[in-house]
Amino acid sequence: MGKQDIGHPLSHFFPHLQGFCDLMVEEVDPERIGVGVDVVICSTPDRVGMLYGKQILDRGASLIDFSGDFRFRDPSAYAAYAGFHPKTAGLPHAAPELLSQTTYGLPELFREQIRQAKLVGNPGCFAVAAILGLIPAVKEHLIALDSIVCDGKTGISGAGKKPSALHHFPERNENVAAYRIAQHQHSVEIEEMLSQVAGQRLSLTFVPHLIPITRGIICTAYAKLSKKNTIQDIQEIYTHFYAGEPFVRMQAPGTCAGLKSVNGSNFCDISLTLDARNNRLVIVAWIDNLMKGQAGIALQNLNIMFDFPEKTGLDRPAFYP
Amino acid sequence: MGKQDIGHPLSHFFPHLQGFCDLMVEEVDPERIGVGVDVVICSTPDRVGMLYGKQILDRGASLIDFSGDFRFRDPSAYAAYAGFHPKTAGLPHAAPELLSQTTYGLPELFREQIRQAKLVGNPGCFAVAAILGLIPAVKEHLIALDSIVCDGKTGISGAGKKPSALHHFPERNENVAAYRIAQHQHSVEIEEMLSQVAGQRLSLTFVPHLIPITRGIICTAYAKLSKKNTIQDIQEIYTHFYAGEPFVRMQAPGTCAGLKSVNGSNFCDISLTLDARNNRLVIVAWIDNLMKGQAGIALQNLNIMFDFPEKTGLDRPAFYP
Amino acid sequence: MGKQDIGHPLSHFFPHLQGFCDLMVEEVDPERIGVGVDVVICSTPDRVGMLYGKQILDRGASLIDFSGDFRFRDPSAYAAYAGFHPKTAGLPHAAPELLSQTTYGLPELFREQIRQAKLVGNPGCFAVAAILGLIPAVKEHLIALDSIVCDGKTGISGAGKKPSALHHFPERNENVAAYRIAQHQHSVEIEEMLSQVAGQRLSLTFVPHLIPITRGIICTAYAKLSKKNTIQDIQEIYTHFYAGEPFVRMQAPGTCAGLKSVNGSNFCDISLTLDARNNRLVIVAWIDNLMKGQAGIALQNLNIMFDFPEKTGLDRPAFYP
Amino acid sequence: MGKQDIGHPLSHFFPHLQGFCDLMVEEVDPERIGVGVDVVICSTPDRVGMLYGKQILDRGASLIDFSGDFRFRDPSAYAAYAGFHPKTAGLPHAAPELLSQTTYGLPELFREQIRQAKLVGNPGCFAVAAILGLIPAVKEHLIALDSIVCDGKTGISGAGKKPSALHHFPERNENVAAYRIAQHQHSVEIEEMLSQVAGQRLSLTFVPHLIPITRGIICTAYAKLSKKNTIQDIQEIYTHFYAGEPFVRMQAPGTCAGLKSVNGSNFCDISLTLDARNNRLVIVAWIDNLMKGQAGIALQNLNIMFDFPEKTGLDRPAFYP
Repeated sequence: MGKQDIGHPLSHFFPHLQGFCDLMVEEVDPERIGVGVDVVICSTPDRVGMLYGKQILDRGASLIDFSGDFRFRDPSAYAAYAGFHPKTAGLPHAAPELLSQTTYGLPELFREQIRQAKLVGNPGCFAVAAILGLIPAVKEHLIALDSIVCDGKTGISGAGKKPSALHHFPERNENVAAYRIAQHQHSVEIEEMLSQVAGQRLSLTFVPHLIPITRGIICTAYAKLSKKNTIQDIQEIYTHFYAGEPFVRMQAPGTCAGLKSVNGSNFCDISLTLDARNNRLVIVAWIDNLMKGQAGIALQNLNIMFDFPEKTGLDRPAFYP
Repeated sequence: MGKQDIGHPLSHFFPHLQGFCDLMVEEVDPERIGVGVDVVICSTPDRVGMLYGKQILDRGASLIDFSGDFRFRDPSAYAAYAGFHPKTAGLPHAAPELLSQTTYGLPELFREQIRQAKLVGNPGCFAVAAILGLIPAVKEHLIALDSIVCDGKTGISGAGKKPSALHHFPERNENVAAYRIAQHQHSVEIEEMLSQVAGQRLSLTFVPHLIPITRGIICTAYAKLSKKNTIQDIQEIYTHFYAGEPFVRMQAPGTCAGLKSVNGSNFCDISLTLDARNNRLVIVAWIDNLMKGQAGIALQNLNIMFDFPEKTGLDRPAFYP
Repeated sequence: MGKQDIGHPLSHFFPHLQGFCDLMVEEVDPERIGVGVDVVICSTPDRVGMLYGKQILDRGASLIDFSGDFRFRDPSAYAAYAGFHPKTAGLPHAAPELLSQTTYGLPELFREQIRQAKLVGNPGCFAVAAILGLIPAVKEHLIALDSIVCDGKTGISGAGKKPSALHHFPERNENVAAYRIAQHQHSVEIEEMLSQVAGQRLSLTFVPHLIPITRGIICTAYAKLSKKNTIQDIQEIYTHFYAGEPFVRMQAPGTCAGLKSVNGSNFCDISLTLDARNNRLVIVAWIDNLMKGQAGIALQNLNIMFDFPEKTGLDRPAFYP
Repeated sequence: MGKQDIGHPLSHFFPHLQGFCDLMVEEVDPERIGVGVDVVICSTPDRVGMLYGKQILDRGASLIDFSGDFRFRDPSAYAAYAGFHPKTAGLPHAAPELLSQTTYGLPELFREQIRQAKLVGNPGCFAVAAILGLIPAVKEHLIALDSIVCDGKTGISGAGKKPSALHHFPERNENVAAYRIAQHQHSVEIEEMLSQVAGQRLSLTFVPHLIPITRGIICTAYAKLSKKNTIQDIQEIYTHFYAGEPFVRMQAPGTCAGLKSVNGSNFCDISLTLDARNNRLVIVAWIDNLMKGQAGIALQNLNIMFDFPEKTGLDRPAFYP
């Protein structure tokens, strides 16, 4: 929402909410933000949450921020991230003193830290799919760390609600394009988190593509096997790793049902294929970018932070067809 | 067209051809096929062209076949190709004696051979994009040959006109899925042709994805640089290699306009990006799968075979928007 | 589902149901159908439900049938309906003795009858939108009954899950066509129900159009005013008529938010515009064809039949974006 | 194009034109506009062409204007048109002295006048489809003039290239909405031209709908027959009326192939159905809104004005699939 939207009910902009949520859009009031609430969710662009973080936390509220502001404990990682996007490049973090308290909001990696956290940086949409697809392979040293390539495909809602020439219907319909080739800022958080998992620095090539759909991200990752392995063994390692995870579902090897198995839900589905001819593992991971890639995982984090059952509000299948 | 379509004009099935092409669909008559014509084009599934090839050539006509039947001179390459698809796996070639005469219909590689050819195997749609994207890098040994990954995205028309559950509108709309992961039969021709270019056997991992658009293929290839190189040098090598090619256009490094720059035309657009952090080259190549990926390249081949100006019938820009 | 699907779990065909519904597809067993259950829902083509209706009811179960088999109490109305579609034309009803017991499953018209009913004919998707849009105008004699035109637009899921040349992705994408022009079988039920509302026979022209979307129906109805009236008065009549209805929402005059306000929900949204220059009322009504137009209204009917709160399982907003 | 685009080649904004049209975008220079050229085409918003019309004509050039500025000879008709759109409402025409010289650029109605014209107002996209669909019926008094309803459906390119919240991809994809219900400015030109055809004033209700496609308009018109008539007779009247027209194709009664028969071409296809039950004629007319609805008809007009063969540059079938 922008300044011009203040004073209208949310349902004015989102007609589907008519009768469900008619809250008014209000101006941000620094005096009131975080007062008398348990949690603030900043679904705002980069560099907004960092302006209010201290106040919110000082007032005793928790903060879940959707931007990249609080995804990194290491200020140099934030600088690397910011450097990848023209809107943030070169700008220093406005609240560096908070970074040591933040937790990366990926429950599959940091559930216990999230449970204790007052400040959570909700992950980037591509990062969720890429990281979940790669964690077990990286953790168990199944793949050569310098051989990882991630090819991402995203629906247009990932670009937000603000109109632009690039996302104008006639421009995107019946079109596919790669963008920010090997320069997308989510690369930084993918590498940061997987490096923690690996116990050593790794980097990878990530190329996102715009697809003419509203929702969904599918991330196809490729890596050389570091040692001989069967698909059965690799599948078992993944299955074991994600056992008990409420929102990650391993698929049968070599199969990919596609976005319709997850869109509208909080699931991440993962499919493994062994390309034996090339000694390469292919990992396909797919999510709804607005659910497991944004609001869904935020709610999952909130449930964990406040000790609600983790599936609260999220226990439903995808929207089909 | 199928048996049930015989006796109706083509414009009955393709209403846009009303007034342009009202030829009747006729039954295939082995007595007449290739009689009194200069060229026969078989836009038929695998294993149809091979049944008629000998007759057609014996009667003095040339043959351009759209399937995989005549893409390989080496019978073992055909066997490898056939083995990748359930419909052809294990079936021997029905006219192996013709294979030594065939030419792979990619003018950018085999223009002089096509000029002399009576029998041309028109390339697979994915193969055109992947091969054109990779030729200069492979030929000039810019990349490590065991590091190549191709991630393909295709519109649904690539699957042909026959309805199926997989390509039913509600199933594909707002959906993206990987399929035949590392098992697509076009891998074989990509590897075969690039191996010829390299002067040594290479193989690569190719994963196609179904995108909810009618037309277009975009192929994103990734490979490690074999030696230090600048993007300027690589761009120049490509530009030089494709200088004079009427239907390959190099794009500015790091940019990808997307399918709308090629759909409806016979162009292949190619974009290069150097991921210096990872010492990896990213090549994005895109075509209209029904033009440069099928009928357009067939016409280009026909023009070459019959010594017509190569752009005849193809000298037009893409359809926009 | 068809015969070939027997023995597989539903989630095999609907991957989004993995972990939510893994029931096996079973063969229809006339000995078991309706035994030990409260209600049977036949989501089957025309002329299937009528084969099992008597058994189901005799065994004490209720039946909600999704086809046209039980939408009419009057056998001649059924004959008219059946006559509109090539697959049913000329075939007599197989269970005419049940027709007198059936209730048309539109709660806004027949809630009390549904409450008592054992046999409910769930309405046709277009019919729900057209009838709900027109009831108050017809009932209050606001419009000339011989002047009604309905222009319907539907997503492709309305055609079911079975693939066909007409609904093949490349055929429908970037395409719009009118079909069964003034000959769609839903016309019969629209006319039948509105005639009951009017207290006199009426008929209207209905033309459906195929739109390249998965879900949603929008029905634009036009009629001459029978007497002078203001938009305020007409709006008030509608608002009053639908007051208390849980799933009909009147929109501000002259506004139409479009399908995204209803898709995924059980709502029917209705917008009124007075074209004073032409003394004509324009009524736009829109629904999700698979919810209020099919499964949603069936669940609403079930809730009424079994005295559950009417919104059970349906109390949620549309899916956005 | 806007001010910010000056100094870049057209192919920068339209990558498909690379190598075909690399003309630079220049600033409008009142001193130069119309100097040394035969014709100026203003593909500009309302109220731009009227600022330059006099200069262009005074300098001896012809003018084809794409906006509503020169569609009406009658200033009151222009005022009515302008009044229908918030951006033009209440503004007087800036060059009323030119109106008496203008010709409405619909060749099927005004071919001879266009041949003599120096100033042509290119028609509105919806108007082309609606008028062509209705001319013969109105001219031959087949229908009751007070009973006409037009239901229009348009692709999003009709809204131009400028991004807006309404035409943002995620907002329009999988969405359909009616807009400017009975208030669209094209109503005025439809009524104006058909009144001339009828020889008496008529008015009608027109409701446009936004469809998630890039191109194409389909207009479904409904009217009561003024006297008994058979579909054969009506079809013959239409066929006779459009005999010799190069870009109007009558379809078999009751059939509608849909937009794919026209998109990319300059054709208008028309289908007639008699709804005998309701004594109503249903006329479906469809065009490519950017061709017969804009640039194509402009080129047709230019060909007529300059005595080129009328099909020059337009003699090609639709783009399929």
